[in-house]
Amino acid sequence: MTDDYPNTQSIDANDPSLTSWVESANTPGIDFPIQNLPFGVFLRNDDNANKPAVGVAIGDSILDCSACWNAGLFSNTPCEDSNIFARGSCNRLAALGRARVREIRDRVSWLLRSDTDAIKGNEALRERGIVSMSNATMLMPFAIGDYTDFYASANHATNVGKMFRPDGDPLLPNYKHLPVGYHGRASSIVVSGTGIKRPHGQLKADDAPPTFGPCRLLDHELEIGCFIASGNELGSRIDVNDAPGHIFGIVLVNDWSARDIQKWEYVPLGPFNAKNFGTTISPWVVTLDALAPYRKPLPARADGDPAPLPYLSPDAGSESEAMGLEINLEVTIESAKMREEGIAPMRISHSSGMDLYWTFAQMIAHHTSTGCNMRAGDMLASGTVSGVNEDQRGCMLELTWRGQNPVKLPTGEERKFLADGDRLTITGHCEREGAVRIGFGECSGVVLPAE
Amino acid sequence: MTDDYPNTQSIDANDPSLTSWVESANTPGIDFPIQNLPFGVFLRNDDNANKPAVGVAIGDSILDCSACWNAGLFSNTPCEDSNIFARGSCNRLAALGRARVREIRDRVSWLLRSDTDAIKGNEALRERGIVSMSNATMLMPFAIGDYTDFYASANHATNVGKMFRPDGDPLLPNYKHLPVGYHGRASSIVVSGTGIKRPHGQLKADDAPPTFGPCRLLDHELEIGCFIASGNELGSRIDVNDAPGHIFGIVLVNDWSARDIQKWEYVPLGPFNAKNFGTTISPWVVTLDALAPYRKPLPARADGDPAPLPYLSPDAGSESEAMGLEINLEVTIESAKMREEGIAPMRISHSSGMDLYWTFAQMIAHHTSTGCNMRAGDMLASGTVSGVNEDQRGCMLELTWRGQNPVKLPTGEERKFLADGDRLTITGHCEREGAVRIGFGECSGVVLPAE
Repeated sequence: MTDDYPNTQSIDANDPSLTSWVESANTPGIDFPIQNLPFGVFLRNDDNANKPAVGVAIGDSILDCSACWNAGLFSNTPCEDSNIFARGSCNRLAALGRARVREIRDRVSWLLRSDTDAIKGNEALRERGIVSMSNATMLMPFAIGDYTDFYASANHATNVGKMFRPDGDPLLPNYKHLPVGYHGRASSIVVSGTGIKRPHGQLKADDAPPTFGPCRLLDHELEIGCFIASGNELGSRIDVNDAPGHIFGIVLVNDWSARDIQKWEYVPLGPFNAKNFGTTISPWVVTLDALAPYRKPLPARADGDPAPLPYLSPDAGSESEAMGLEINLEVTIESAKMREEGIAPMRISHSSGMDLYWTFAQMIAHHTSTGCNMRAGDMLASGTVSGVNEDQRGCMLELTWRGQNPVKLPTGEERKFLADGDRLTITGHCEREGAVRIGFGECSGVVLPAE
Repeated sequence: MTDDYPNTQSIDANDPSLTSWVESANTPGIDFPIQNLPFGVFLRNDDNANKPAVGVAIGDSILDCSACWNAGLFSNTPCEDSNIFARGSCNRLAALGRARVREIRDRVSWLLRSDTDAIKGNEALRERGIVSMSNATMLMPFAIGDYTDFYASANHATNVGKMFRPDGDPLLPNYKHLPVGYHGRASSIVVSGTGIKRPHGQLKADDAPPTFGPCRLLDHELEIGCFIASGNELGSRIDVNDAPGHIFGIVLVNDWSARDIQKWEYVPLGPFNAKNFGTTISPWVVTLDALAPYRKPLPARADGDPAPLPYLSPDAGSESEAMGLEINLEVTIESAKMREEGIAPMRISHSSGMDLYWTFAQMIAHHTSTGCNMRAGDMLASGTVSGVNEDQRGCMLELTWRGQNPVKLPTGEERKFLADGDRLTITGHCEREGAVRIGFGECSGVVLPAE
């Protein structure tokens, strides 16, 4: 099915023209081969006067799209009139819409091919246009207008339901009829590498009045996020079949959560302070086009599950139906002691983008079904992605089953929830026979002590 | 107590210098006397090439601050280096912080005084600097980064609790310990006068599968909102005593709500699509300084109510303690038939800013207690403001008690919830002996049919 998508041919690893003159991009197993080309925003470390710019990851380097634009390399593309890369966000780029972004990405692909001399053959341009990742700081890829977090993994929702409502159905009646979600906090979304300070909040033990102090049950949530390209006008809807055309790309997300704050505050209006102290995303936004070989329909619903209502049902064989994302996700933890002792981070969980019950296309269709408007750069996150097995649970709450089964670290330390100094890292990649591996980089953050 | 606040003296109606050469501002009972001076963003209707600018309401006119800046009238103020008024939002102005905004407002006050000739005595400048409201279109005052909606009226929360949880305590256990709130949708906040299209959504009758269609139980919510001036860094907190220094001003808010969508979707993560199709605000942001004579502590908590935790307790006698706002609020309805028949809008509800259980200072302290960062232009809304009496309920859900007691219109029509063509208008004003009346203008919108 994916063979029908535009650009799919550019994923064929056997085409000798599909290697890059940026040699590191041709290393097998690297996250950013020429078939990936994710967009991000970076700042050169070696140039104090430099301003942030939009770049594309290639191997261990970054193509400075702004420098390329200034050299005339984006003529005859949808951005030829304005250097939309000389900016601190991808918002202007995304607002062009997915089809135009694809044209621009095609140009980037051409510029980086082994058999294209435009940059390769120009030493000054090569110097200016290619920046080593080790010599750059990644910034937030978007100025995020609105952030919405969903709850789209039925495995996760079932586990949480079992823990918190042991006497009822683990899934609430609405769960399989609509993608449950809530509005999140956009201001506190940060890029990978930013420390996350343990929040204060109201905590309440049973049979005692609430107190105010540092969160004791700090958790991560393994998620994936989707950035909107072109949006819709207030009062209009995005049809589920059109939704993929409104998606710019995908990132990894850690939706840090304060479980003790959450427990006391969240009824009746949902999670609030438990979630607004920090959300980490990976810096490189991987386009849907790069993911083409790794997109297919989600697994069929179980017998007895309701069919989605028509507004949530993509046409058979449509691009929107193939919005299950075969992304292999992993979470590692590294305690301060592990770091001191030189012990490698330990994998504590792995799951897949296929472990969702709803696709981003369905989430967008549902979200805009009221006429709610999306804007370029808005972010939708999946909610915790948990698989069915015990080692596939996407947060400490589930992994340790509310702390009953602590995670044992190689140092002998135990974790029921996260401790100060812990580094949590989410990685993701797509890989299968006959296609090039596509990686997401990492989404990482260290827990800083409360102040 | 309010006599100690800066600028309070400018509220003295008996000072003959405190009238304006803009004659309409001296009309008794007008919303925008020289003691008010709210900020907003407008577009001249008579000038196609004109760009939006920040203005100040004065009588039935607008002072074009950008034109005044260009004429050098803001020299020796905190904005002398840059025309922060030549913009489509007040964000840059607000980011200067409340103290600097006060200096700028003082200059505006001086420019508009009867005894100041700077504009009055310059015909060209008067022509350019004063725009009739009838010749301008008001735009959104801020580019809102994040919007948070609270639930701060205990009367409202109690009524909702009685309707939806008749067998339990109407207020949930956390209600009197923390200001309950949730993150809202910023993209769909619109300025007064914008039509609100009836949303579609999933609706579920008891014992039937959900269906998708137009909302049948459309409601308004009478609220007030607070715009942030200077914010705080991620990981830091705003002390409750410092919170008033972070507030730019107050507007009226109608948080339109789809009750049938809400009922089916809202457990467990809170209201989502029920709220994101439109939120209307009044265009003029009334500063805390203009409200000084109308600020006092909220009524003492009832015996048996818990004392707020220290982080939510302002110092006695502090400005933060005096964050109860004596704003008289009113809601009117005008059906399409009333409009056709020339029947005046009918008042259906009235309440007061004093009918809240939590102040905006406490909401800000709680919201940032986790380290969540606020940015200039963020909006916090109070939640539905309901008084104790039946005619003081701030939404149709409460007013009609879930439709059991319909509102009777002068045409003979009845309303359980809102019908297409209904215009809902919220107004607000402050008034008492010995102080000048301060008005908020209006927050109005017509319900448009679903499409």
